[in-house]
Amino acid sequence: MAVTKAQLDLYQQRAADYLSRAGIVLTPAERQHIEIADLGLGEFERTGLALVVYINTERVCAKELVLLPGQTCPEHLHPPVNGQPGKEETFRCRSGVVYLYVSGEPTPNPKATPPGGWGTKYTVAHEIVLHPGEQYTIYPETWHWFQGGPDGAVVSEFSTRSTDEYDLFHDTAIRRAPVVID
Amino acid sequence: MAVTKAQLDLYQQRAADYLSRAGIVLTPAERQHIEIADLGLGEFERTGLALVVYINTERVCAKELVLLPGQTCPEHLHPPVNGQPGKEETFRCRSGVVYLYVSGEPTPNPKATPPGGWGTKYTVAHEIVLHPGEQYTIYPETWHWFQGGPDGAVVSEFSTRSTDEYDLFHDTAIRRAPVVID
Repeated sequence: MAVTKAQLDLYQQRAADYLSRAGIVLTPAERQHIEIADLGLGEFERTGLALVVYINTERVCAKELVLLPGQTCPEHLHPPVNGQPGKEETFRCRSGVVYLYVSGEPTPNPKATPPGGWGTKYTVAHEIVLHPGEQYTIYPETWHWFQGGPDGAVVSEFSTRSTDEYDLFHDTAIRRAPVVID
Repeated sequence: MAVTKAQLDLYQQRAADYLSRAGIVLTPAERQHIEIADLGLGEFERTGLALVVYINTERVCAKELVLLPGQTCPEHLHPPVNGQPGKEETFRCRSGVVYLYVSGEPTPNPKATPPGGWGTKYTVAHEIVLHPGEQYTIYPETWHWFQGGPDGAVVSEFSTRSTDEYDLFHDTAIRRAPVVID
């Protein structure tokens, strides 16, 4: 359950193409280190996302997220860490469409279907659809998941410090740290 | 010393054009409310900047800044506010070039000249030149100022909460809140 070097190269190139088409310029080092997060599930094109972390200090984090068409970042929440409130994050759609689901009144006939269907791994169904220029803020301890639309999506994330290793997922098979076989 | 309605419309249109050319999509409401900060000096094309504030919560702020060619955001710092450390901000250049000056070893032959020249209003001269994709983080209580290059610049700012009204400027004529004559 890991990403091979050949897959890593391919997925990084695809993410770089999405970012470039959205007008986002990366340094050569950022391009080389685009993170391919398959979450240990071994089905990156279905479940996972690509990330460029611009900055992650004690107080502030900013990233670009790239979702392939129909690709899903699975349901999770950001708990308090070391006595600090959990991570707060704003998602701003830059290109494509992103379907975001959070705690709250379930939306009838949601546009996205979770990988494997609704159930214990995907439980929240209050839908927010973000087109380019639209954004939504997720406050701490809110379960959420999101999926790229038919043409994928590029999403900017503005947040407090990112501590991915503390994120809580329903799917116990998920491993947040990337694993790459050279 | 204020921006007339006609100037506001013109400067907003120019900022919108810069953002659009950088591939940045705004909602109609954001486009309508682009902030034209002339800092009360009445010389916007020389001293000031345009801003789109995406989000400014208790913990996180994100903005786009637009600088016209040679336009300067004057020297200031972000002090502690209400017992919290001062604002921390990362500037990421999206298009054009920005010349940034911070406390530290003065750079010989800096590329930008401050409006009115060096002196009591512009004192820090450690130069950082940011091209698209390049970024720099300014930690609290660091004096800094910046100027758009020959083609202007679009800069993303990722920061802690913005409390502009507490910013300290050397130039006592500066008023941070915008003044518009209808």
